[in-house]
Amino acid sequence: MKTYSFIEKTVNALSGNHSGDYPSIPLHERRMPSAEIMNEIIELIRSALFPGYFGSPLVNEVSLTYHNGVEIEKIYNLLFQQIYDSLFYHNRSANADSEQIRKEARRLAQQFIERLPEIKKMLSTDVKAIFDSDPAAKSYGEVIFCYPAARAITNYRIAHELYKLQIPLLPRIITELAHGQTGIDIHPGAQIGRYFSIDHGTGVVIGETTIIGEHVTLYQGVTLGAKNITLNLDADGQHLNTPRHPILEDNVTVYSNSSILGRITIGHGTIIGGNIWLTYSVPPNSRILQTRAVSLDLTDGAGI
Amino acid sequence: MKTYSFIEKTVNALSGNHSGDYPSIPLHERRMPSAEIMNEIIELIRSALFPGYFGSPLVNEVSLTYHNGVEIEKIYNLLFQQIYDSLFYHNRSANADSEQIRKEARRLAQQFIERLPEIKKMLSTDVKAIFDSDPAAKSYGEVIFCYPAARAITNYRIAHELYKLQIPLLPRIITELAHGQTGIDIHPGAQIGRYFSIDHGTGVVIGETTIIGEHVTLYQGVTLGAKNITLNLDADGQHLNTPRHPILEDNVTVYSNSSILGRITIGHGTIIGGNIWLTYSVPPNSRILQTRAVSLDLTDGAGI
Amino acid sequence: MKTYSFIEKTVNALSGNHSGDYPSIPLHERRMPSAEIMNEIIELIRSALFPGYFGSPLVNEVSLTYHNGVEIEKIYNLLFQQIYDSLFYHNRSANADSEQIRKEARRLAQQFIERLPEIKKMLSTDVKAIFDSDPAAKSYGEVIFCYPAARAITNYRIAHELYKLQIPLLPRIITELAHGQTGIDIHPGAQIGRYFSIDHGTGVVIGETTIIGEHVTLYQGVTLGAKNITLNLDADGQHLNTPRHPILEDNVTVYSNSSILGRITIGHGTIIGGNIWLTYSVPPNSRILQTRAVSLDLTDGAGI
Amino acid sequence: MKTYSFIEKTVNALSGNHSGDYPSIPLHERRMPSAEIMNEIIELIRSALFPGYFGSPLVNEVSLTYHNGVEIEKIYNLLFQQIYDSLFYHNRSANADSEQIRKEARRLAQQFIERLPEIKKMLSTDVKAIFDSDPAAKSYGEVIFCYPAARAITNYRIAHELYKLQIPLLPRIITELAHGQTGIDIHPGAQIGRYFSIDHGTGVVIGETTIIGEHVTLYQGVTLGAKNITLNLDADGQHLNTPRHPILEDNVTVYSNSSILGRITIGHGTIIGGNIWLTYSVPPNSRILQTRAVSLDLTDGAGI
Amino acid sequence: MKTYSFIEKTVNALSGNHSGDYPSIPLHERRMPSAEIMNEIIELIRSALFPGYFGSPLVNEVSLTYHNGVEIEKIYNLLFQQIYDSLFYHNRSANADSEQIRKEARRLAQQFIERLPEIKKMLSTDVKAIFDSDPAAKSYGEVIFCYPAARAITNYRIAHELYKLQIPLLPRIITELAHGQTGIDIHPGAQIGRYFSIDHGTGVVIGETTIIGEHVTLYQGVTLGAKNITLNLDADGQHLNTPRHPILEDNVTVYSNSSILGRITIGHGTIIGGNIWLTYSVPPNSRILQTRAVSLDLTDGAGI
Amino acid sequence: MKTYSFIEKTVNALSGNHSGDYPSIPLHERRMPSAEIMNEIIELIRSALFPGYFGSPLVNEVSLTYHNGVEIEKIYNLLFQQIYDSLFYHNRSANADSEQIRKEARRLAQQFIERLPEIKKMLSTDVKAIFDSDPAAKSYGEVIFCYPAARAITNYRIAHELYKLQIPLLPRIITELAHGQTGIDIHPGAQIGRYFSIDHGTGVVIGETTIIGEHVTLYQGVTLGAKNITLNLDADGQHLNTPRHPILEDNVTVYSNSSILGRITIGHGTIIGGNIWLTYSVPPNSRILQTRAVSLDLTDGAGI
Repeated sequence: MKTYSFIEKTVNALSGNHSGDYPSIPLHERRMPSAEIMNEIIELIRSALFPGYFGSPLVNEVSLTYHNGVEIEKIYNLLFQQIYDSLFYHNRSANADSEQIRKEARRLAQQFIERLPEIKKMLSTDVKAIFDSDPAAKSYGEVIFCYPAARAITNYRIAHELYKLQIPLLPRIITELAHGQTGIDIHPGAQIGRYFSIDHGTGVVIGETTIIGEHVTLYQGVTLGAKNITLNLDADGQHLNTPRHPILEDNVTVYSNSSILGRITIGHGTIIGGNIWLTYSVPPNSRILQTRAVSLDLTDGAGI
Repeated sequence: MKTYSFIEKTVNALSGNHSGDYPSIPLHERRMPSAEIMNEIIELIRSALFPGYFGSPLVNEVSLTYHNGVEIEKIYNLLFQQIYDSLFYHNRSANADSEQIRKEARRLAQQFIERLPEIKKMLSTDVKAIFDSDPAAKSYGEVIFCYPAARAITNYRIAHELYKLQIPLLPRIITELAHGQTGIDIHPGAQIGRYFSIDHGTGVVIGETTIIGEHVTLYQGVTLGAKNITLNLDADGQHLNTPRHPILEDNVTVYSNSSILGRITIGHGTIIGGNIWLTYSVPPNSRILQTRAVSLDLTDGAGI
Repeated sequence: MKTYSFIEKTVNALSGNHSGDYPSIPLHERRMPSAEIMNEIIELIRSALFPGYFGSPLVNEVSLTYHNGVEIEKIYNLLFQQIYDSLFYHNRSANADSEQIRKEARRLAQQFIERLPEIKKMLSTDVKAIFDSDPAAKSYGEVIFCYPAARAITNYRIAHELYKLQIPLLPRIITELAHGQTGIDIHPGAQIGRYFSIDHGTGVVIGETTIIGEHVTLYQGVTLGAKNITLNLDADGQHLNTPRHPILEDNVTVYSNSSILGRITIGHGTIIGGNIWLTYSVPPNSRILQTRAVSLDLTDGAGI
Repeated sequence: MKTYSFIEKTVNALSGNHSGDYPSIPLHERRMPSAEIMNEIIELIRSALFPGYFGSPLVNEVSLTYHNGVEIEKIYNLLFQQIYDSLFYHNRSANADSEQIRKEARRLAQQFIERLPEIKKMLSTDVKAIFDSDPAAKSYGEVIFCYPAARAITNYRIAHELYKLQIPLLPRIITELAHGQTGIDIHPGAQIGRYFSIDHGTGVVIGETTIIGEHVTLYQGVTLGAKNITLNLDADGQHLNTPRHPILEDNVTVYSNSSILGRITIGHGTIIGGNIWLTYSVPPNSRILQTRAVSLDLTDGAGI
Repeated sequence: MKTYSFIEKTVNALSGNHSGDYPSIPLHERRMPSAEIMNEIIELIRSALFPGYFGSPLVNEVSLTYHNGVEIEKIYNLLFQQIYDSLFYHNRSANADSEQIRKEARRLAQQFIERLPEIKKMLSTDVKAIFDSDPAAKSYGEVIFCYPAARAITNYRIAHELYKLQIPLLPRIITELAHGQTGIDIHPGAQIGRYFSIDHGTGVVIGETTIIGEHVTLYQGVTLGAKNITLNLDADGQHLNTPRHPILEDNVTVYSNSSILGRITIGHGTIIGGNIWLTYSVPPNSRILQTRAVSLDLTDGAGI
Repeated sequence: MKTYSFIEKTVNALSGNHSGDYPSIPLHERRMPSAEIMNEIIELIRSALFPGYFGSPLVNEVSLTYHNGVEIEKIYNLLFQQIYDSLFYHNRSANADSEQIRKEARRLAQQFIERLPEIKKMLSTDVKAIFDSDPAAKSYGEVIFCYPAARAITNYRIAHELYKLQIPLLPRIITELAHGQTGIDIHPGAQIGRYFSIDHGTGVVIGETTIIGEHVTLYQGVTLGAKNITLNLDADGQHLNTPRHPILEDNVTVYSNSSILGRITIGHGTIIGGNIWLTYSVPPNSRILQTRAVSLDLTDGAGI
């Protein structure tokens, strides 16, 4: 028994609150939404949107309705519970009426379900755009099945609908699932038009107030970010969400590892080269390139 | 029952085809290859190539043959089925003869199995190269077990053999598995010589027609990409696969976040610094560095 | 039977050692530490550090002690076994006395457990720093639950304690788990002060001998790396671990995709813009920006 | 599509109601209690009652409280949900008020939890009785860990408490779990005193209104059943539950494969031999044996 | 290596064939049907036959068709493969044409699917009979959900249809699944009429050529078996399947642990008491009871 | 917090020891053997003994050695650990030297492995006997794959070897696994000759000191038990294990539900009918039948 006293000591230290010198993390005593179940929901939606490519490997025209029916019912039931938990998370200091929140959660889950056919339409344009921009692609099916961009944009378009319904936490969980799987980090608040394409994608970051037109293509490592971070708090101590990310008009292409920062506008038809740090607006049809690199011999002081 | 009418409505909308304004995704009525099973196959191959590090944690000289035997047999049986499904995917518009495709799938699976000893040899040079380039590495075993580069290059070398056998879909699934796990995106079509090393690796992109010599080292965020994307379609409406990515000769090193684009040649022994955007060929033994950054005070218009 | 001769042939080729032209990977005949169990340990620690957010979804002030107790006991038992296996890996050429290594492993596991309350304190400062730097964040809970930076820094702070106890392999396994999940690659040997924050994070690399002060913020794609790699081997043929990564003093911010390389010092209060390649020390309160990009029309020879 | 018409036809036939010639099984549109979760609850209770033998394989005096705490909290939360679903099942024709049923379910789950220490006491007497009656038993621990009787009686004592709380369905699910695992079928309504022992047990049946005293031992295949089945229905068409199974007073032993049927009384201290069919009461301290079997030669007409 | 020589020795001994003194078990080199997948199929059928009680816990009149559709398609696909493997098992000495066997397997699977609505009708009569015979039963739903007899008879009725289609192995696998779970062993070849009921059921055995009328009830431990076993082999050395088990006419009841053996006829309306050994036919409406047991004191030589 | 006080109260009551009125179950603070792992070991042994029928569904003459090799190595490693834990269980009051027990466990695991070929031979005779006694059997393979008797006898023969090595607990765990799955309860201490067959099997009980010759057949519900239970304790308070179960000589058959009790001898060639209660020895070639049952009308006082 004596040998385990360090366990007791550690348990007691962890169970109490540490002293005031450090920030205090409040104990959330209700159930959090579950990242595992959100993942299950997303995979069910992926099956319903792209039958034959995800979910059951065998679907035909007869059984498609059966599969969609089971999936949509399951999505609705699971999502209702997750929305319920997330609404409680949001309202945790208030006197929440569980029956009313339950009703609100059902309403929101239904509204989301009704948006699925529209999401499918939008995604069909993205699949075409990804296919058209990659000479290595062999078919729409390969894009849907293999391309991380298709996965990340699907998650984003789902999360964006939940974001528009002002559901807390869940949209971010959904885009972070894609971020972890693909390295593509699209904030659910971003507004992105049809025929959106990302190539390779690792390291892409698209901020919350970004606005992207149609037929826009991004390469790996592109940041559409905020120029600086002046925190504005509202009366409740919450962060204010002011426009701080770029606007990309239609038919813009941004090559790898470039950073476009601040509430600037990139005019339609513009092409931005790779490894660019851009903090000012540019007119339509611009071409922006990095200054040519220099060749050095090994004796240079900067060294490598 | 009435309360579920929105589910019926959504199911019907998803099961039908959306109107002609949007691209139509055809329903693939045969079984797709399975990413889960491809992952299982890859992990079995990893066990067979690096016994003791992956798969059974306990292997000795006596039991090594037993383990390899069970693994190779299982790889063959699983891979045959995946190749069969992928060949059907490829030929789906033709009148495929299932018995002939089955036979072809067996032949291709066998040919791949016979390449495994050669893959193991190649990978042993990569392990040595990764070890030699990282002062933090303690042993070959640590490189094999912990380093994402070892994982990504293993997947690539496996995928490349399947690519050479002209098997559709599977090579890309394999490299995307590594891409998702490591952030390293190597197209299975790239040709890469012995003693290949990547450090850290997140964000590395290597395009389909890239050619890399021996003893080449890349750092995180390096892109070996195409300069521009002019889609060339063949008579069947398929993308033409023309050389469009760089050639890196022997002993080239590229530091972090640089982009090397187009069918250019980087001469042997060249060192390319970080954050470079390079679109022209350079002679052997070159040193390429970014223009020196400038210091500014906060009143500068570009701001941060 | 004949049809399987290619399997026998491959098995025999793989079970033997390939010829001397290629590096030889020694067979490790003892049990390796397990990445799966290390992941389980890390998730248990995450539950103990952030109750209610990870692990059991329902915890209250009464049951917190019960949950912590079960978790800490389990962490101790699992970690002891992993340390034991890793010590054997390290000492594999020596005549290891299993009873003594077992005892040593128990001692090290206990020392780590005793550090958990301190790790929790440090992480509470990181959570606050991440929250404060992101206008999109709604609560500490959202940061803990959704933000990849919180995940990666947690893994790092755990791994760093094991690194300080000179336990082989396990620290690297832990940070690579986070690397795979978040694209953030922090070497367990790095020394990082309180209130450390990373935004988005994909592609961040922090090298082994890096020293970071308090209130430092990094954006995605930042490398804190070594300038060049001259391998120094000690008498046993082991890599020497000399200081080769940067020192960032307090209140430094580095924007996206910049690379800071070599044993240089970035003075306190400095802000470094994005896409910078920096290999020299800078004084306190500096502002470092990329040279302004140039606009070109499409006829430029560099093309895109 | 045509080839699947038999599937559509079967689906439609199954989804409709079959014609009136056959009994109609009503569709239960609410969630049924879950046999899987009831099994999980029972295994958690087994861990809490017999720590070290079930559940975590490592428990000591320090950690026992932690383990019990986590288990009891989990049992409470899971059981509440199952009771809630079972109450709805019971009240399905009435206008159930879900908030009130939820409250009732919480109250019942709490009452059950509070009975656990008493259940543990009762079971400790059963363990002793089983141990004492089997010369092959080596320790109480072996009885707890290996003996099907210990498993079946544990399930019964748990189910009996829920039965006394008038919770529908769940008690029967619990005893059927043991029935499936051990072949011992004890109705949760039976009343059984301390120091109850069953040997081997397969085929034992104990009916709903059976009353068993203390220190009673049964062997495999013993039935304590009803003599005949005259169905008595109450005003609601429900079966009436009249006493119809035997009363066994203290210190009764019944050997293998005997059937004791009807509301009869077996006086204390009685021993009943094997393969007996008994439908009348017997006084205390009786000895009941089968008529001696006869030896025959093979020419007998009854044959074998 | 030396320490493992006993493993090598054992492996070699097991891999070879033991000497001719012992029966030789031939190596079956094709895939056997899978008990796990047969179990999955049976549980899917249970869901399709008793929606809401098994499978998805939430089904309503709208979603019932969706669930049935997905289940029937899955049953068909899984069952086809199992039938295919079982046909190969049966024909293993012949020159089997795999394409023809595949076609035959599809035909048989379809025929079985088409019988499901009839199976459902039959089972609805069994559920009613079980409910009517047990005063402790509260609803049809409880019978379906909890009663082992409902489970065993369901498996039997499914297996019997496959038996009638002369599919090898699978029928027996199905009834053995129920046997293991309930202790009720009904041979798939038995012919059993509507409204069949078993109470408790452990130890019930019903032989291959048994014929049972309508409204028959059996209690636990009842054997309907063969009187003696004279093996008759056909020209191929296969067992001949001659009628050797009893015929029970309508409305027969058999109480616990009785054995009825041989091709005898139990006339309609007969009641047979418990613990009876019966090897001769009895006329309609008979009552058969065990000779009354005797009371003895402890000094009797037979003892207990 | 207050609402959970009943949980705290229950936890404290369960964690303490109940008062002296009830038997005290000691806390076993070391790891118990694991029924789950024992099950895994048994299934691995089943695969090694009957390749193609259990374990990998595809084995051929080439791969048989590989599969056996991996299985035997895994059996050895798992079994060693289980034996180690069981030896500690046995010696828990003594000052156990863990290094010596580890060595002893290795020795015993090796001795068991070396017995596997002999176990396989014995089982081949049992398979033949089961096949020969059932007209419904189609092949040895069907017996191995489907028949519960084959499963139960396999477990027994494995357990018996461990019993002979005087390993505590594990033999009983193994036979109880079969008991739960098949309803056949064979004590691992029983001695059973070649060509042993059980038909149907539910309810069969074979006691610890039973001795069974060759070519013996038992039917369901047969008990080979002890006549009375006079507990004899040795000096350490352990049960004495005196011969108390029957001896069945060669070629004995016992029909269903008969009980043969006490240290009596059933002479070779004897046939015992069903439902017999037998407590005296019988000479060779006897025929023992139940007294003929009587027919009664419903007015009889014994009723049904």
